Parts: sequence; C-alpha cells; structure tokens
Amino acid sequence: MTVYTEHTGLSLDFDEVRERVLTRLTLFLEAKRDDAACRGLSPEIPETLRDFVTAGGKRLRPMLCSAGWRAAGGTGLPDTVIDVAAALELYQAFALIHDDVIDDSATRRSRPSVHRSIADRYPRARNARRFGEAAAILIGDMALMWSTELLTGAALPPGRRSAVCSLVDQMREEMHYGQYLDLFTCLNPLDDHGAPLTVIRYKTARYTVERPLQLGALLAGADSDLLDRLSRFALPVGDAFQLRDDLLGLFGNSATTGKPVFDDLREGKRTVLLALAAQRADTAGLALLEKHVGDPRLSEQDALRVLEVIEGTGAPAMVENMIADRTAEALAVLDTSPLPPSAAADLRHLAALLVERES
Amino acid sequence: MTVYTEHTGLSLDFDEVRERVLTRLTLFLEAKRDDAACRGLSPEIPETLRDFVTAGGKRLRPMLCSAGWRAAGGTGLPDTVIDVAAALELYQAFALIHDDVIDDSATRRSRPSVHRSIADRYPRARNARRFGEAAAILIGDMALMWSTELLTGAALPPGRRSAVCSLVDQMREEMHYGQYLDLFTCLNPLDDHGAPLTVIRYKTARYTVERPLQLGALLAGADSDLLDRLSRFALPVGDAFQLRDDLLGLFGNSATTGKPVFDDLREGKRTVLLALAAQRADTAGLALLEKHVGDPRLSEQDALRVLEVIEGTGAPAMVENMIADRTAEALAVLDTSPLPPSAAADLRHLAALLVERES
Repeated sequence: MTVYTEHTGLSLDFDEVRERVLTRLTLFLEAKRDDAACRGLSPEIPETLRDFVTAGGKRLRPMLCSAGWRAAGGTGLPDTVIDVAAALELYQAFALIHDDVIDDSATRRSRPSVHRSIADRYPRARNARRFGEAAAILIGDMALMWSTELLTGAALPPGRRSAVCSLVDQMREEMHYGQYLDLFTCLNPLDDHGAPLTVIRYKTARYTVERPLQLGALLAGADSDLLDRLSRFALPVGDAFQLRDDLLGLFGNSATTGKPVFDDLREGKRTVLLALAAQRADTAGLALLEKHVGDPRLSEQDALRVLEVIEGTGAPAMVENMIADRTAEALAVLDTSPLPPSAAADLRHLAALLVERES
Repeated sequence: MTVYTEHTGLSLDFDEVRERVLTRLTLFLEAKRDDAACRGLSPEIPETLRDFVTAGGKRLRPMLCSAGWRAAGGTGLPDTVIDVAAALELYQAFALIHDDVIDDSATRRSRPSVHRSIADRYPRARNARRFGEAAAILIGDMALMWSTELLTGAALPPGRRSAVCSLVDQMREEMHYGQYLDLFTCLNPLDDHGAPLTVIRYKTARYTVERPLQLGALLAGADSDLLDRLSRFALPVGDAFQLRDDLLGLFGNSATTGKPVFDDLREGKRTVLLALAAQRADTAGLALLEKHVGDPRLSEQDALRVLEVIEGTGAPAMVENMIADRTAEALAVLDTSPLPPSAAADLRHLAALLVERES
C-alpha cells in the first residue's frame, strides 16, 4: 500500500484539530472541577477525567469529524465542530473507562486504568478492588453525561440540531450493541468469525469512523447522497482499522501501543484473526488455542507458543490481505466522489493513519 | 402528621400519569427490540429494560414532573410532559442498575437484580458473576443513552429546549455527585452525619423531588420565582423522603419494601439514622455497630442486636422528628404560594406519598 505518498495538499492542520479539542476538554473539565470545589463536592471526578483525556489518545474521532466538515464544504474550523469533536472524545473516555472495568484491564494509555488507580488510592476501603470499580463506573457515567452536555451546549445549526442529535444517538446505540455482542462472543466457539465481524462493524467501523465523519459533514449541511458516499469510504476503512488493531494486539510492540503484551490473549479477546487461525489450525494447534486463549494467568512462554500457532496458520497474512482489500475499496470511493481535492487528501491521510499505524 | 386528610380536589389523576408513562416506555423499548431484531442484534438489552420498568417502581419522578406542569399553569397532560417523565424514569432505571452492580444487591423490585439475573442466565461464562456485572454495566449505559434519546426526541417548546436540557444536565450531575460521595461515606467514621446529609441533598432531594418538579414547571413556562418556590417545597420533602427510606431500610417490612431485610446493614449503608445512633450509643453499643455494620455475612441474630442498639439510642425517634419538621416546612411553603388550589393539592398529596409511605 502506498497511500502515504499521496498526503500532499491537505485541507486540515490535524495538529491544530487535536490541540483545540484537548484545550476545549481541559477547559470544560477544569470549569467542572472549580464548580465542584465551589459547592464543597469532590473534584475527583473532573480531575480524573481531565487526566484521562490529557494522557493520550489518537483523537481519531475529532480528526474524522473535522474532515467530514471540510468534505461537505465547510470552511475554517468553527467552535461548533470542535465542541462536537470534544463531545465525541469524552464519549470515548466513558466507553474506555467502562470497558477497562469490564475487562479488568490494568493499563490504559501507558498508565494504570481508572479503576485500578482509584483502588490504589484508597487502600482503606473494605474491598479496594470493588471500590475502584464502583468509582470508575460512576466516573464513566459522568463522562457520558458530560459528553451529552458538551453536545447539547454546542451552537448547533438550528435547522440541523435534531438530525445531529439523532445521529449521535444512533452512534452511541450502535457502539453499545457492538460492546454487548463483544461480551457474548467469548461464549461462542473459537473459530466463529461471524460475530467478530459484526462486532467490528458496529463497535469500530460505524462508531469510530463512519459516524464521526458523517457528523462533521452534517454540521456543514451535507445531503444524504454525500452522507452515503462518506459511509462507503468509512466502513471498509473502519473494518481495516480494527483488523489492524487486532494484529497489533497480538504482534504489536507494547512500547508503542501502550498496552501490555499478551493482554488480548489473556483476556480471550475474540477477533477475526483468532477465528481464522482456529479454523485453519491442526488438531494440536486448536487444542493449544482452546487451552490458553482467555487464561488470565497465561505464562509468557505459553503465550509465545500460541502466537507461533497463529502465525503458522497463515491467519496474520490473511488479515493483512483483508486490510489491503478494504483500504483499496475505500480509496476507490474517494476517486469517484466529487469532493474538494484537499478534503479528499484529508481522507486519504486519515485512512493511512488508521490502517498503517503501529500503535 | 395529617397531610393525608387534605387530598381532595386533586388536579391530576396520578394513576393516569403512571399508566401513560409505563405505556410510553413499553412502546419505546419494544420498538428498540424490534429494531434490534431487524438488524440481527440481540434483543436482550431492550427486553431487560422493558422487564425492569414494568416490574415496578413508584413513578415518583413522573408524578412530580406532571405536578410541576400543573403548578405552573399547564393544562391537560400533553405527550411532551409524558415523554420527559418517561425519560426521567429510564434515567432512574440506569441509576438503579448501576447502583445494584456497585452494591452487589441481589434483589430489586422483588426480583433478582439485573446483574444477578444475567449471571444466572449464562452459567457457561468463565466467571458468571463478572459476566453478569459487565452486561449490567452495558445495559445501564444503554438506559442512560436512551433516556437522552427520549428527551431530545420530545417536542420540547422551542424557546425552552435549551433551559430544559440544561436542567436535566444539572439534575444528572447532582445525582451523580451524590452517588460518588455516597460511595466514599463508608471510609468515614460511623458517627459522621455531615456527609450523609449532603448525599441526601444531592442524591435524593434534588434528583428525586426538586428537579423533576421544576422540569414539569419549566415545560409550562415557569419563571424563576416559581422555580424557586417549588425548590423550597421540594428540598425539605426530598430530605424527608430519604430519611423515611433510611428508617424503612432498617425497620421496614421487606414484604412491602421489596428489599431483603438487613440489606442496608450488611451493605454498611451510611445514613443520618446510623450516624445519630453512633453519636448517641454507649461504648459497648458503638463497638457493636462498628463490628457488624457493613459485614456482608452478618447473621440475623446479630442484625437484630444492631437494630436493638439503634432503637435504644433514640435515633429512630429523632429521625421521625426530622421528617415531621421538614414536611411541615414544605407544606408551609405551599400555604404561602400563589398556586392554583388543585395544583397545591397535588403537591400535598405527593408530599404525603413520599414521607408517609411504608414501601
């Protein structure tokens, strides 16, 4: 793939997008902290969320939302777009905080996850682990509520307010159905790849790529034809993004991904990659996968044997091919779409960022 | 107290309010279920929520919202009021489902709590208990999102949409700060009653009584003077409601409350009642409280000894007095407010329902 060579003539300064979204979130959460302090309430919720959003994150959704704005002919980067982008980012914080409780992940963005860090902070609690989880559930809930507040407080174009809010409702619902389905995949046989594909579609392709892009476009007044075109670009890119994520989860460098190596294996995360490997493994290989995948105490030695089996089935190469096919499909949509050239360049840049990344 | 004698000349038919809200919620959730089925997604989330909302609940917030509408001169009971009331009820479902996960409550509305019932439904999960909790976190999240969808989909009066949404944002935030503070009260000494009073104010008085009432009034165009008056009625009633709840939690009849007896004691729920008892107990009594309150395996025999100590301190009678004082304060506000007489009768009726209840 050579998409990276085409990144000249971008319309957006993506560093500016990331910085403005972070500034917006920081100001919002610091105002919440000051307000809590004024009322004698604990500043821990807004401070935890501020630390969470400043600790990192790729700001994919804000970048896609801004690119959607430009794709639909929007000019500049008005505060409304940044507000909506910031709402998406805070929604993502909510989703990750709850997801980490559900998976009992120890680490997020190279730091202790919210529930673990609160458990460490209050050793006096009768059951510090459950205490941390309870606090993280509530902090996540507040992030979701504040994300709504950021959105409804944005100066949305009056004639499009209802369409924008509906699209956000839809995005949240899709993502959540994906999360729920994801939870249940662990009850399926290892070689089932239908459910992981549906999870990818709902949890990642729609939520991470399609909807943020369409939201930005809708703010600029996109018609349904343009929204459809953006969707035909976004869904294959989104699928490819998650397939890349699954590869990185097993074979990536934990120093760049910020996630501990073997976490996905120990958690038993069901992916297309794993399903393909299970389908193609011989009896001994399948038995090894069934024994070790999802074992929270999986040793490094056994994890390396699992990776060897997966490699041996050729599944990683198949997934690389799937990524390449989907990326090509997405880029072809751009070639035939009447977009402003610099906006198309933005989308090509983002496609590369999503599918060629190493973290 | 004789507030019950005055319930003639009500403006609202509260049975109708409850029925219409339940119908609205049922239709909304069944449409969600059909929509999920069409897309090949699991109907478990909408079905679980439908079962949860039909299983019971006093519909306090819907009744208060409707009463607020009438208090501000609204006529009839338009669909918009029912939509907002239904959104409040679905928000409450979210709050209870997450609260039950946090407290690991086995029972809600005389049935197994959501996380327990899902754990029972999927014994094949590697860790059924955590699986049930994970599913319940996601189902609660969806209830929160759908509550927003019900609200933003309501035909709110265009000039007041932003004020209504802000008030809902504020209500959610206050409730959540109350929940968070409540979590931390278990780290305080037993005799601290400052934190429980703040929890009552945020988690109950504002969230359960003041804000629903004001929301209904705002829909009918209430000015800030009326909103203030309603607040001065609502806050003492709300405090009294929670104080009654705390008494029922220890001394109520579990057949009418729907909660297992001694749950509050085993969970170590910090209440004003408990703080007053701890302040007034002698050394032996305090030691007994400190030993047993919050012990999840507390025996029935020891629980009865704890109740005996609490009774002996006179704390329950003090709490009864606090309830009476607050109720009188609230009713006095009605006596001096220029409300339509039948609307004032509605509020007196609700005050009685809130503070004189046995379940």
